Amino acid sequence: MVSGFKNLTESKIYSQLLSLAQNPFDLTEPAALQAGNRLARYVCRTELLHLHYATERIDEAVMDGLQQLADDLHLVEQFREMRRGAVINRIDGFDSENRQALHTASRDLFSPQPSAPLATGDAQKELEKLRMFLEDLASGRICNHRGERFDTMIHVGIGGSDLGPRAVFEALKAYGLPGKKVRFIANVDPDDAARVLAEVNLATTLVNIVSKSGTTLETLTNEHLVRLALKQAGLDPSRHCIAVTGEKSPLDNPENYLRSFYMYDYIGGRYSSTSMVGVVMLGFFLGYDRILEFLEGAALADSQAEEVDIRNNLPLLLALLGIWNHNFLDYPTLAVLPYSQALNRFPAHLQQCDMESNGKSIDRQGRRVAAKTGPVVWGEPGTNGQHAFYQLLHQGTEIVPVEFIGFRQSQSGVDSVVSGTTSQQKLLANLFAQMVAMAVGQRSANPNREFAGNRPSCLLLAEKLTPKVMGALLATYEAKIVFQGFAWNINSFDQEGVQLGKALAAGFLQAMMDPAGASGTLEKVFLDQASETA
Amino acid sequence: MVSGFKNLTESKIYSQLLSLAQNPFDLTEPAALQAGNRLARYVCRTELLHLHYATERIDEAVMDGLQQLADDLHLVEQFREMRRGAVINRIDGFDSENRQALHTASRDLFSPQPSAPLATGDAQKELEKLRMFLEDLASGRICNHRGERFDTMIHVGIGGSDLGPRAVFEALKAYGLPGKKVRFIANVDPDDAARVLAEVNLATTLVNIVSKSGTTLETLTNEHLVRLALKQAGLDPSRHCIAVTGEKSPLDNPENYLRSFYMYDYIGGRYSSTSMVGVVMLGFFLGYDRILEFLEGAALADSQAEEVDIRNNLPLLLALLGIWNHNFLDYPTLAVLPYSQALNRFPAHLQQCDMESNGKSIDRQGRRVAAKTGPVVWGEPGTNGQHAFYQLLHQGTEIVPVEFIGFRQSQSGVDSVVSGTTSQQKLLANLFAQMVAMAVGQRSANPNREFAGNRPSCLLLAEKLTPKVMGALLATYEAKIVFQGFAWNINSFDQEGVQLGKALAAGFLQAMMDPAGASGTLEKVFLDQASETA
Repeated sequence: MVSGFKNLTESKIYSQLLSLAQNPFDLTEPAALQAGNRLARYVCRTELLHLHYATERIDEAVMDGLQQLADDLHLVEQFREMRRGAVINRIDGFDSENRQALHTASRDLFSPQPSAPLATGDAQKELEKLRMFLEDLASGRICNHRGERFDTMIHVGIGGSDLGPRAVFEALKAYGLPGKKVRFIANVDPDDAARVLAEVNLATTLVNIVSKSGTTLETLTNEHLVRLALKQAGLDPSRHCIAVTGEKSPLDNPENYLRSFYMYDYIGGRYSSTSMVGVVMLGFFLGYDRILEFLEGAALADSQAEEVDIRNNLPLLLALLGIWNHNFLDYPTLAVLPYSQALNRFPAHLQQCDMESNGKSIDRQGRRVAAKTGPVVWGEPGTNGQHAFYQLLHQGTEIVPVEFIGFRQSQSGVDSVVSGTTSQQKLLANLFAQMVAMAVGQRSANPNREFAGNRPSCLLLAEKLTPKVMGALLATYEAKIVFQGFAWNINSFDQEGVQLGKALAAGFLQAMMDPAGASGTLEKVFLDQASETA
Repeated sequence: MVSGFKNLTESKIYSQLLSLAQNPFDLTEPAALQAGNRLARYVCRTELLHLHYATERIDEAVMDGLQQLADDLHLVEQFREMRRGAVINRIDGFDSENRQALHTASRDLFSPQPSAPLATGDAQKELEKLRMFLEDLASGRICNHRGERFDTMIHVGIGGSDLGPRAVFEALKAYGLPGKKVRFIANVDPDDAARVLAEVNLATTLVNIVSKSGTTLETLTNEHLVRLALKQAGLDPSRHCIAVTGEKSPLDNPENYLRSFYMYDYIGGRYSSTSMVGVVMLGFFLGYDRILEFLEGAALADSQAEEVDIRNNLPLLLALLGIWNHNFLDYPTLAVLPYSQALNRFPAHLQQCDMESNGKSIDRQGRRVAAKTGPVVWGEPGTNGQHAFYQLLHQGTEIVPVEFIGFRQSQSGVDSVVSGTTSQQKLLANLFAQMVAMAVGQRSANPNREFAGNRPSCLLLAEKLTPKVMGALLATYEAKIVFQGFAWNINSFDQEGVQLGKALAAGFLQAMMDPAGASGTLEKVFLDQASETA
């Protein structure tokens, strides 16, 4: 086990990187993108994903510095130990979760010697349960009380039990089995459940309740609403509900659920898309074989993340470029802009995975951090965004580093030539053009048509958004986030910052229940209770 | 016409506000929220919306300073002149659009003396055309070739012709006419169109093509794909397509379109939701009467925005609080977090409306601005976000001011009591709790359970998300954005920053069409063309 974690600012290379950042590579110089065969040199290629990063403000000196940083902070070593079951979800000397972080084990199914055999064994057992369940659904051995097959699934979860699974579902919608539908309920807003329930045929609907603890307020409330709707439709909820939950949680109960699939406390919610949390719904929608492709892509990305050369370790490189932009060039946010409508919810997943992991102020020794930790992450698909917020990206006073994501082929293959090019070509031409425009800028006699340039970006490029590529993309970002957490020496696996809001909400709920409170307006409850809390 | 616009930094009160910002109100002091009856004092109430802002880091000195700033920069005067048709979309002394900004006229229908009578006359004429068109659809006078009525509309547009209309549609889905469906195609990604076309019954579908110039690349490409699909289904596109476009644009052609509704160059795309751009689709879906309610809410908010007392002018107050957080407390982003699933696309609309308007670096005299202009705007609905990125909001090193949006009642009214409270109560209890938690923080012996507090927020609270309230909310944010643009002395109505990317994309497209380029890989085209451009 690597001991004595160093903070970013304690690395011997930190001050050297700081001084390099005083004068970063100038992308607006004439022919800057041609210098030293830059465009061809700054590409990291893996089997499924390529990373083009010539449009970042880096040069060989910075790259060498980032390599030294990675070595000095033992980033790859820590990743290897995480995959092998080190208890890294902890803060030294203080009460903390004290757990392993073994999301990688849930897809480590394709190697004869998995890195964490026990956890991978758990995953295999649950996958086998799922395979049989899906067979029973397909054969009609499990069906509704009228003998009809289930064609719809409502996935009920929130946070990690919603965002990652939903992003992957949206990404792979084009691969759905004929006739299969999936809907999601997450928000405690009653209108969320009401909309979904109005859209489906409950008689042929399975309801998948996803909550590790079996006590998540939103999910239990929505489960209640859905069970009520099932009963009102004359259906028996226990024949329609399944659960993904911790073993022995309140949801692990065959009287109320057709099946329970298990999730384990060594996998955090935001890293759980490749566990039963995502895979039960995806299996229903895509079929079992597609799931294996998805998991295989993720496993491939995990094993490639153990490479020590940062130029050949794609997620580590992405992590270090992010640190260069955030900690050395001092940019507070990161935009992730997929040029693929199917990835429309991927930025929302990353908001959780990244900001909940790395939005921390305390290092793993309980000391206040000296360097900034995670940036604000946001994004929408292109080209849509070009007609929305790109004005600010090009000419605003806030500088926003961008990670573009693109694919050489569309998923559907349905396309046509308009004005000499296909839609897919137009999509990529726009993506490429944005990278270059942000980098090189433009001089003009009209000050309003000036573009300062030097706005850094990179591009993750893949052949096509298949289940396998989606697995690799998901795991690449998980690894990137984890590498950054290691570099900042923070615990990327807990979320103490969500506890205070929960505790205070209980007080407001109590005040709303109180007959005295209920007799006033909601606004009065707010004013009274807020005043009391403060 | 107000002459000689001053920049924020040129206001006589600027330096005083800067020094107040050295020591802003401390929300973490014991009983801070009770001080001076703060919670009850810092509320701005209008008929439809209340703004609670006691959890901002302001006090009376700051409020007085912001009032002086508003007066000194003539913010309300400029707004009044905008509504009355001043040519404010311009840069002095340089080639620019030189237009009025009269989006407010499109809803100024409820006063005997509209502020800009000609533009409101245009709006009335188009609304009357729309009313008759909707009647013809309802009566079946306009129908498909088999005599069936249209039950579905595909809205094809991008940017301002997509984001605002879509956000309003999502917000008001609960009010849709029975049996009516709307789908959207925006992205040039061919998978976007393919998905929508696979979901609808084209025979009973109207296609609404929205493009002011009639030359938007994405929209024309998608129109082409949709017309092809109609023909392949044996249908006559000219009997299924309508257009919202500029008079005499290529889309203003009765041979190809059942109807054309007009939009005018004095309304920018991102401010056009209350013009035909939004209202044709909304009229089809909600019916004509609901549209009038929506427009009435917007008109009400516009007229209230002419109040000079900042404590009684809600959008101006919101604008100034934003400037306090961004320019004086130096926070680079703004999160807009609606506790309403129906507002799930409202932050995406605001990203365009705000960041495209105010992501600028040049003032209205063509000088480089000294102060920061628009922040990065982002957000997702609560309570979902609580389980995603709120960790960073509470404990991250980036401080993010928040604008919460909440409603006392749900739209559907479908709700039930679980553990003593309704879902709607749980939703609001969580919202209130987050505001208090961010403001007051928490001390703890465990450093990982410390919350620094002093993270500013405010709350826009309304009774229920009706069409009228949605109109007011939309117009409130438009006015807020415009007020901030006035304060920064920038042109909030152009978007020169999107031109460079468009121009460079043409080069990449040419290279892809070139037989030499086409014979290589797409990646080679990127490398070669990027190198050439640089």
